Amino acid sequence: MAQDKLVGLNRRNLLSLIGMTAGSMTMYHAMTTLGLAGESRYNGPIKLEGAPKDTSVLILGAGLAGMTAALELRQAGYNVKILEYNNRVGGRNWTIRGGDSVKELGGEIRNCEFDEGLYINPGPWRIPYHHHGLLAYCKRLGVVLEPFQQLNHNAFLHSTRGGGGKPQRVRYVMTDIRGHISELLCKVTRKGALEGSVTKEDQEMLLEALRSWGALDENYAYQNSTHVREFRGSVEAYRAGRNSVVPTSGKPLSLSEILGSGLWSDLAAFARYEFQTTMFQPRGGIDLIGKAFSKEVDDLVTYNAKVTKIEQDEKRVTAYYEDSENPGTIQRASGDWCVCTIPLTILSQIDINVSAEMLAAIKAVPYASSVKVGLQFKRRFWEEDDLIFGGVSYTNLPIRQISYPSSDFNTKGKGVLLGCYTWNGPNSYEFTSMAPEERVKRVVEYGARIHPQYKEEFENGVSWAWHRSPFTLGCAGDWTEDTRREHFNNLCKIDGRVVIAGEHASQVPAWMEGAILSSLDAITRLHKRIMAG
Amino acid sequence: MAQDKLVGLNRRNLLSLIGMTAGSMTMYHAMTTLGLAGESRYNGPIKLEGAPKDTSVLILGAGLAGMTAALELRQAGYNVKILEYNNRVGGRNWTIRGGDSVKELGGEIRNCEFDEGLYINPGPWRIPYHHHGLLAYCKRLGVVLEPFQQLNHNAFLHSTRGGGGKPQRVRYVMTDIRGHISELLCKVTRKGALEGSVTKEDQEMLLEALRSWGALDENYAYQNSTHVREFRGSVEAYRAGRNSVVPTSGKPLSLSEILGSGLWSDLAAFARYEFQTTMFQPRGGIDLIGKAFSKEVDDLVTYNAKVTKIEQDEKRVTAYYEDSENPGTIQRASGDWCVCTIPLTILSQIDINVSAEMLAAIKAVPYASSVKVGLQFKRRFWEEDDLIFGGVSYTNLPIRQISYPSSDFNTKGKGVLLGCYTWNGPNSYEFTSMAPEERVKRVVEYGARIHPQYKEEFENGVSWAWHRSPFTLGCAGDWTEDTRREHFNNLCKIDGRVVIAGEHASQVPAWMEGAILSSLDAITRLHKRIMAG
Repeated sequence: MAQDKLVGLNRRNLLSLIGMTAGSMTMYHAMTTLGLAGESRYNGPIKLEGAPKDTSVLILGAGLAGMTAALELRQAGYNVKILEYNNRVGGRNWTIRGGDSVKELGGEIRNCEFDEGLYINPGPWRIPYHHHGLLAYCKRLGVVLEPFQQLNHNAFLHSTRGGGGKPQRVRYVMTDIRGHISELLCKVTRKGALEGSVTKEDQEMLLEALRSWGALDENYAYQNSTHVREFRGSVEAYRAGRNSVVPTSGKPLSLSEILGSGLWSDLAAFARYEFQTTMFQPRGGIDLIGKAFSKEVDDLVTYNAKVTKIEQDEKRVTAYYEDSENPGTIQRASGDWCVCTIPLTILSQIDINVSAEMLAAIKAVPYASSVKVGLQFKRRFWEEDDLIFGGVSYTNLPIRQISYPSSDFNTKGKGVLLGCYTWNGPNSYEFTSMAPEERVKRVVEYGARIHPQYKEEFENGVSWAWHRSPFTLGCAGDWTEDTRREHFNNLCKIDGRVVIAGEHASQVPAWMEGAILSSLDAITRLHKRIMAG
Repeated sequence: MAQDKLVGLNRRNLLSLIGMTAGSMTMYHAMTTLGLAGESRYNGPIKLEGAPKDTSVLILGAGLAGMTAALELRQAGYNVKILEYNNRVGGRNWTIRGGDSVKELGGEIRNCEFDEGLYINPGPWRIPYHHHGLLAYCKRLGVVLEPFQQLNHNAFLHSTRGGGGKPQRVRYVMTDIRGHISELLCKVTRKGALEGSVTKEDQEMLLEALRSWGALDENYAYQNSTHVREFRGSVEAYRAGRNSVVPTSGKPLSLSEILGSGLWSDLAAFARYEFQTTMFQPRGGIDLIGKAFSKEVDDLVTYNAKVTKIEQDEKRVTAYYEDSENPGTIQRASGDWCVCTIPLTILSQIDINVSAEMLAAIKAVPYASSVKVGLQFKRRFWEEDDLIFGGVSYTNLPIRQISYPSSDFNTKGKGVLLGCYTWNGPNSYEFTSMAPEERVKRVVEYGARIHPQYKEEFENGVSWAWHRSPFTLGCAGDWTEDTRREHFNNLCKIDGRVVIAGEHASQVPAWMEGAILSSLDAITRLHKRIMAG
């Protein structure tokens, strides 16, 4: 596994390098072609019926995949039980709240000191509107959703490579790049450069469209004007505190400035299908999804069950486990069949008698590195001073993103923002290697370059480095085109009496949707196999 | 007034014509240069202190301007009372809910048959994040806000002039126009057309940026590819019902198609500063703002008070009024000073002894026409079938917009959408002239061309035509550059013991923010005048 992991990391480093030189749009592009950001192929609710009498299924893991399987299989008539390593359901569908304690591998127990009602979601945190499977379960289980603001025109784009490191409003960069491109295209169109490729009539409409779309003046120039202010908006005196709005649009960024700084590259994060409006989050924390599932299946779950061995024969599958909080005594649970949702990082360390192909697949997939850091501040200065209500600011600093809460807008009192969200690459590894208090300290230092208020307003923070997560040893299955071609089908096939499910066994990796789709696919095939005798 | 009104209407018709030929972006542009869409200049909370003992202020109108004045003036120590024409506070800050009855001028009482919890906001309905004054009062008064989705990448753009009248997803038009423009600019750049105006180095970065930003392929062409699908997303078989997602990006719209249809022109509505993310609405109806103010000032309000005459002398201002529900008996209310927020359409018909200049100003401003129609459907098919969660679809059909609710996302059961929202122009006048049931019928017919489900799922509807609104006779003050130059200052000055406030006396007309800013400005000046003796 170590070697495969290195391969994965190198590929990710490569992606990260592409991202740094050519912008993250290119990186996302690369990710998609590598099959990391697929399409949800939810085919509607499943109805499994007529399970043979007294047939049992043992499910390993009470994350979204495991609980989906439990809910549907019990409904079909199976006897179901679940073994879960943590003392809670949800797995990566998890929210850290004030009062919670967290413990990374090799670390100490750390308490989250957020005030009541404040939280961060260390894992998944947002739901694209086209993640049909997840949304269908949210509807069915009554999970209250609210919009997750991904695009906020008033959030910042920040690059240490441009404009003296001054953060720029998203609306400035959006308007300015559109303006410069429109101006250039108008100029060459009027010089006749499009003759032959665009009809005369279309050229005229194009000029009209570009003038409007690019906020050009009557001479097709992009420059400070009332028209520009309609899109660029007004300039708030940066750091001048509340209510100091100066209604001028400011001087547009030059094309050279935008290109050289790379500020344009993060605009893609707002335009991509996966991040388009309307995105969602459960009102109150992402773990309310897991908790809604739990209402249906909690009676089936054995908590703190650390699986150490999985053994199948022609009739049964038996899991050996010990109490993760009081290890020593090995217990057993068994079923006629087994749905295993244990992350591959963990499963690859467990003794399991499946085929050589499946074993190879289990060992083939490294897990992505990701670090999130939540910061509590005395007041919601990003709203009060900076007029940023939700959304994401992007930076080329190691923290990469600052995400402002998409809830409790315009309220008084304290707030928590996501001060750092890295995904693989050197930034992620560096933060992972730090002690949690060091991470928080560094994130506050970096963030203060975008929001100087950090220094005054910061209260406390909590971090989670997924490579040090005891129950996953990483954030999500990190497939490459090669590993997927070689191992994906072997991983997903029913092996004797065992079938694997989870985001790692899906075409929508790293998303909750992947866990659910994979689970529905796995149990549909399993049920069919069982019914076929 | 009749003549002025005609002038206003003609100007608006002109705007509407510009809108129809050159796209609504041009129209918005024209609106702004005419001063119709100004900037909020909120200067922070006001603190009026030390009102002279036993000084009273009579406020006419319990809309947002009147209630802001009442709240602040009472706090400053004044004796305050309010006369209100309606039997409720809020004025145009109003929500029509199931069980409410509405009555237009010359019409019958009509009941809104929406189910419990469903509503439409006939007047204002959304709050830009930079409307500082309004947001400050929402915070102070505890109004719970939720995001209003203006931009939904999956909503429709529709034109009868293009593509056989087939609605196109916003994300298609956005991605395709960006793609075509990028492709054209890359082509001419590579042919050397930018030599002399862009440096060689910037040209190279520009090509790279355009390739990413425009989703071009390795040859800088915009055509169906994985890269395009990342932004365009997948094509759902239109009308094929739930769960029939076919993950292909579809054939891009040609540049000619986009230009000729005018589909591009409505994209501006998502990019304009006024409509940028994050917008807000109160959770549960816009009138919760008025109701929050009402908690502070309800004890000051006399309802159903139809003012017929306003008379001032050197010492007092007296308003004569009758009970709007039982007219006949004239009553009086008076104060040392008066803040008058009665819409100019109504005020111009009331006997009032102010200066000739102010009288001329009162008579100079026509009011905009606007019609909204809310439709209740058996199910939220726009979410279930079309995957449209909130946001606005634009069309060149007379209904102009369809807005999907920004609340109760992903829930079962019925829903209400805004099926028509016109603003001046022939469409508005035509709908105004229809009987309410005819409006609803026509709106359902038009809407079915975008959402065929209308036919099957429609239950009932309610409409409001602002030109037939008894308490406003129009939607909002419709200033021109000329009328503003000639009359605005005369309208806003303190005339004897009377000062005028409301959106019509602001630089942010037609927005709630205008009402509040105007009120703060008026009472600040009034207080100063009083303190000066």
